[in-house]
Amino acid sequence: MSFVSSLRAAWRRADSMLCVGLDPDPARLPACLSGRADALFEFCRAVIDATAPSVCAFKPQIAYFASQRAEDQLEALIAHIHSSHPGIPVILDAKRGDIGSTAEHYAREAFERYRADAVTLSPYMGYDSIEPYLGYPGRGAILLARTSNPGGSDLQALEVAPDPVLGAPAERLYERVARLAAGPWNRSSGELGLVVGATFPAELARVRSLAPELPLLVPGIGAQGGDIEAAVGAGASADGFGMIVNSSRAILYAGSGEGFAQAAAAAAIATRDALRAAARRAR
Amino acid sequence: MSFVSSLRAAWRRADSMLCVGLDPDPARLPACLSGRADALFEFCRAVIDATAPSVCAFKPQIAYFASQRAEDQLEALIAHIHSSHPGIPVILDAKRGDIGSTAEHYAREAFERYRADAVTLSPYMGYDSIEPYLGYPGRGAILLARTSNPGGSDLQALEVAPDPVLGAPAERLYERVARLAAGPWNRSSGELGLVVGATFPAELARVRSLAPELPLLVPGIGAQGGDIEAAVGAGASADGFGMIVNSSRAILYAGSGEGFAQAAAAAAIATRDALRAAARRAR
Repeated sequence: MSFVSSLRAAWRRADSMLCVGLDPDPARLPACLSGRADALFEFCRAVIDATAPSVCAFKPQIAYFASQRAEDQLEALIAHIHSSHPGIPVILDAKRGDIGSTAEHYAREAFERYRADAVTLSPYMGYDSIEPYLGYPGRGAILLARTSNPGGSDLQALEVAPDPVLGAPAERLYERVARLAAGPWNRSSGELGLVVGATFPAELARVRSLAPELPLLVPGIGAQGGDIEAAVGAGASADGFGMIVNSSRAILYAGSGEGFAQAAAAAAIATRDALRAAARRAR
Repeated sequence: MSFVSSLRAAWRRADSMLCVGLDPDPARLPACLSGRADALFEFCRAVIDATAPSVCAFKPQIAYFASQRAEDQLEALIAHIHSSHPGIPVILDAKRGDIGSTAEHYAREAFERYRADAVTLSPYMGYDSIEPYLGYPGRGAILLARTSNPGGSDLQALEVAPDPVLGAPAERLYERVARLAAGPWNRSSGELGLVVGATFPAELARVRSLAPELPLLVPGIGAQGGDIEAAVGAGASADGFGMIVNSSRAILYAGSGEGFAQAAAAAAIATRDALRAAARRAR
């Protein structure tokens, strides 16, 4: 099954748009795991097993493993998701961006080494920096459009000139990225998605109107302050799904003691329910 | 010594603007190294030792190591450069781009784990995605401005609206990035540089005029077809330096047999000499 079709199946099966982000910070792990060489793996594995029934996807962030020389634990974690929770897509959050044979090596890293179903990418280097990933049949690429941070406005909110060939008016850079991703850039595979922060609901609505069919990966609820109601109202598609709403810290660190996995499960259920309710109201 | 000052010293000491890019492709390694578990390390180590007298910097590309589960070899390689060739700055080509604690983990990966002197970054997520790297005193960050690939034009060549606060006219996106990097974004550390491809000499000249003091990392000569004479004429600063002109494949694979390191040394000397001659003509 392709990334987009397994995502669609997961939305319906779990009736959930929640994605749990796996960003394990060594300084915030529960004391019961301290000193273990495989602490990152064990922490995330317990959170995964506890939250799997409530999610449509998992999103490991590679920096948290790379800074700790823990690539082997990331490999083991993704293998665990595939074997114990088949059908839940794994999005490797790496925000890669490069060209030619370098991009081919990054694609090999994401799809062959880590066996991710999709990877996040920066669009700054253009279509030929995206294409090498689309050569892997059924794998997805999710492009940064309007990110959740304040500095995202520095470039993404700049107004760019019209493009008569594309039929595009003067618009913001993130809108141009959404237009390209929904149009010419998605023709070869149909497996593209877009990142749009929950902290900018008006921009989220704009991206949804430019890219009605694309899955939107939406960070920024929870610790970053994005509002679930506003985000889902702006970003859900007509069937009440269409979004991969990421929560990392609010789930991972919901509890801090031995019951951390149960606390994560409860936080995941509460977030899933809030997303569900918002989607029903938006429908 | 900071990244920029060690780079300036290296330009003068070696009288060279050549940077050797370390992009070891397993399919192209010499037969004499085949089957060795540390083949990537040994190949690059031999090229480094043979070319060190001719270069101002080395630029390992992390994807080639990550796709092969060879992070340990990349660590060993950078440690080897620091111990055997002290004073030659190491630029980790990773093109990272993320925010907050994720960016802090990427910075830790680049500067603490790999001990790079500088790292390449994508500017798409804005200044707050650059700032965490600048918190490491003396370490550099080199931002993508105008990349060497044809698709670089997809976003980088878009015309963006004027910015009265910045005093910027309507200009191309890559020009806005250069203006920000030479101005407000460089105020806290003074350790920024820019990536501009040799394949676009007019754009290189434009970036040099917007950022007269910034080191420019210039890929695209050799295999990608950029012309040395045109690139150096456009990008050198008044003192005849200012550029880190990268060559990867043309040096690494100059020879294919047991004499690969000697062939790399000869190719590096020839490229350094061509860069030197072009800089003298430009001065």
